[in-house]
Amino acid sequence: MSSAKPLLSKRQSSSSSSSNGIMHKCQLSTNRSPKKVCLVGSGNWGCVIARIIAANMASSPDVFDPVLTMWVFEETVDGRKLSEIINSDHENVKYLPGYKLPTNVVAVPDLKEAVAGADVLIFCVPHQFLGKMLPQIKDQGLVPDCIGVSLIKGIDFDDQGVVLVSSIIQTALDIDCSVLMGANVANEVAAGDFCESTLGCNDLRHGAFLQDLFHTNRFRVNVVLDPHGVELCGALKNVVALGAGFCDGLGYGGNTKAAIIRLGLIEMKKFCYRFFDGIKEDTFFESCGVADLITTCFGGRNRKCAELFVKDKGVTWEEMEATVLNGQKLQGTGTAKEVFHIIEKTHSLPEFPLFAAIYRIAFEGADPTTIVKL
Amino acid sequence: MSSAKPLLSKRQSSSSSSSNGIMHKCQLSTNRSPKKVCLVGSGNWGCVIARIIAANMASSPDVFDPVLTMWVFEETVDGRKLSEIINSDHENVKYLPGYKLPTNVVAVPDLKEAVAGADVLIFCVPHQFLGKMLPQIKDQGLVPDCIGVSLIKGIDFDDQGVVLVSSIIQTALDIDCSVLMGANVANEVAAGDFCESTLGCNDLRHGAFLQDLFHTNRFRVNVVLDPHGVELCGALKNVVALGAGFCDGLGYGGNTKAAIIRLGLIEMKKFCYRFFDGIKEDTFFESCGVADLITTCFGGRNRKCAELFVKDKGVTWEEMEATVLNGQKLQGTGTAKEVFHIIEKTHSLPEFPLFAAIYRIAFEGADPTTIVKL
Repeated sequence: MSSAKPLLSKRQSSSSSSSNGIMHKCQLSTNRSPKKVCLVGSGNWGCVIARIIAANMASSPDVFDPVLTMWVFEETVDGRKLSEIINSDHENVKYLPGYKLPTNVVAVPDLKEAVAGADVLIFCVPHQFLGKMLPQIKDQGLVPDCIGVSLIKGIDFDDQGVVLVSSIIQTALDIDCSVLMGANVANEVAAGDFCESTLGCNDLRHGAFLQDLFHTNRFRVNVVLDPHGVELCGALKNVVALGAGFCDGLGYGGNTKAAIIRLGLIEMKKFCYRFFDGIKEDTFFESCGVADLITTCFGGRNRKCAELFVKDKGVTWEEMEATVLNGQKLQGTGTAKEVFHIIEKTHSLPEFPLFAAIYRIAFEGADPTTIVKL
Repeated sequence: MSSAKPLLSKRQSSSSSSSNGIMHKCQLSTNRSPKKVCLVGSGNWGCVIARIIAANMASSPDVFDPVLTMWVFEETVDGRKLSEIINSDHENVKYLPGYKLPTNVVAVPDLKEAVAGADVLIFCVPHQFLGKMLPQIKDQGLVPDCIGVSLIKGIDFDDQGVVLVSSIIQTALDIDCSVLMGANVANEVAAGDFCESTLGCNDLRHGAFLQDLFHTNRFRVNVVLDPHGVELCGALKNVVALGAGFCDGLGYGGNTKAAIIRLGLIEMKKFCYRFFDGIKEDTFFESCGVADLITTCFGGRNRKCAELFVKDKGVTWEEMEATVLNGQKLQGTGTAKEVFHIIEKTHSLPEFPLFAAIYRIAFEGADPTTIVKL
C-alpha cells in the first residue's frame, strides 16, 4: 500500500527522468567533420523542419557543413521548376507558402546527387516513395557511419510481423535509423510556437548528435532510447484520432471523447507490448505519446474527416482526401487497416476492441455508436 | 534494444491489464446484509452520483438496502426547504435542475440521523465542511466494518507532509476510505453519456463492493489498488488546467497546449512519486489520470477562468468565482497554492518548473508567457 512521505525527513531526491530536458553533447563516431546533412523530402513538414535544422547547421559550422541539401520531387509550379523557385526565391510556394527557407537550404531534384556524401539522411517523404528511392540511394553509395532519421508516420506488415518504416530504411541501406515524432502540427511549428518533439534512437551517440541538429528553444527535442515505441506512437495515434472524430460526429461530449482517447492510449500500449519486445513505458509520456495523441484527437485531419464521415453519411475516405484535404492523404485509415489485419491474423481481436470497432465503422459499415459499446 | 516480435510463433498472450473492465463480485466482510448506504452531500456532482447508485441499489435488493439516504445541507429555495423539495418532487432544483432523482433517494437534513446505521459513507461535500462534520459523524457511532469513499478533490498539508482528504476521513472516523475520480463532467454524466471513472481502494474487497455500487454500462468504474495515486491525480489535474487556460488566453495553438498538458502530467507523476511511496504507474493511464486531465484542460472551469485571467488583465480569481461561476469555487487555485507551498518548503522548485510558473502567474503577477520559458 502507498503511504505519504514526511516532507522534511526525506533526502532531497533529484528524480530526474531519463531524458527530460537533458542536452547531450557528443559526436558521431567518425572523425570526418563537419557533417553533411541531406533532407530527403520537401513537402509541408519537410520544409518546416528544413527551417529549423538549416538555422542550427549555420550556427554550428564546426559540427555541420552549413549547406542543407534538400531533395525535391521536381514539379512545375506556374511554369517554373519547384527546385529553381526554392533556390532563387527561398520559399516552397506549393507546400509551405508564406515562410522563407534559410538561404543555406539548397534544393536538388536528382536523388543520387542530393544524397552524395551525406553523413545524415533525414527521410520525410510519403511511405510509398521509399520502395523506389532506397535502392537508388544504396546504389549511390553511402559514406562510412552514415546515419538515418525517419519523420515518416505509418506501419506495414509482412508474414514475419509488423514492419516499421525505420526498419525498412535500416535494412535497405544498412545504416542505423532513428525517428522523430511529436505533437507538431506543421504550420504551428513554422510560426515558431513553443512545442516539443521526441527523438527515438537505437544509439545515444546518434541521438545526441541528432538532438544538436533538431533542438531549439522553441522546438524542444527529448531523446529516448526506444525508437520502436516512438515510431509506433506516431503511427497508431492516427487510428485513435478516427475514433475521436466519430465521437465528435455523433455529438458526444468531453467525458466520452476523453474515454475514447484513454482507451486508445491503452490499446496503443498493448499493441506495442504485444508485437515488440523492449518498449519503454516512459515513451508514452513523451511528446510522441500522450501529447501527439491529444493534438491529433482535437486538431488533426483524421479527426476532422472522421467527424464528416459520420455526419455526411455515404461520403468516402477517398472523396474527403480529394476535397477536404486538397489531395493530401489520410494516414489513419491506412494504418487502421494494417492494424486490423495484424490483430485479426494473430487472433488478438478481443484484446483490441477499440481498434477493431474503429476499423469496422470506417470500412465495414458498422454503426458509429458501436464505438461506445465495446 | 527493442525488437519486433514475429506474428505467428508467439503464444497468444492474454495480457489483461490489472483492472481494466474486470468486474469483481464479492462482499464486505461483515455478515450484515443488505447494506445501508449514506451519501453525505447533495450538490451538483452528489445528485448525479445519487441517480446512478440509487438505481443500482434498487436493482440489487439482496446486496443493498434500497433506500439511499442523502444528507442535505438545508437551505430554503423559493420558500420551501430543499430537503422537502427533494423528497416530494424528487429533484434538486437548485443544484441539478431538470434531472429527476429516483424515488428511493431520501433527503435527510440532520447529519447524525442521515449517517445512522450506514455501512457505506460516500463523501461529496466541499473540503472545508469536513472539519465540523467528521466529529459529529464519529459521535453518532459507526457500525462495525463501515467503509468510506471520497469524491472530494483537493489536497492539504501539515508539518508532517501532504495530507489527503481520504486520510482525513480515515483518521477522524477510523474507517477504510476509498476514492472515486475520473473524467466525469457532471452534466454529461447526468445526461447518460458514456464515460469511465476510477475507484482507488486500499482493499480489493472494498473496491469490488463499491464497484457494484457505482458501475453501470454508461458509467464504467475501474478498480485500482492505489487510492493515493487516484486522489492526487484528481487534485493536481486542476493545477495543470490553469496552465492550459493561460495557454488559451495567450492564443497559443494545439502544439503548445499539448506540450503544457504533457509537462503537467510529468509533474503530476513526479509530485506523486516525490511525496508518496507505492504509487502505481498504471494509475496515470486510468480515467482519473490522463482522461480527466484532458477533459479538465479542454472543458473545465479552471481552464475557463485561467483563460479570462490572461485576457481580462486585473480580474481576480474571487471576482470570477462570484460572476463567471455563480458562486461555485475554483479548486485549482487553492491546490496550486498548496502544491507551491509544499514544493517550496521541500526545496523542490527546480523539479516542478511548470507548477511553480503556474503559481507565480496566478498569484505573483508573473508574465503569463513565462509558462513556455521553463
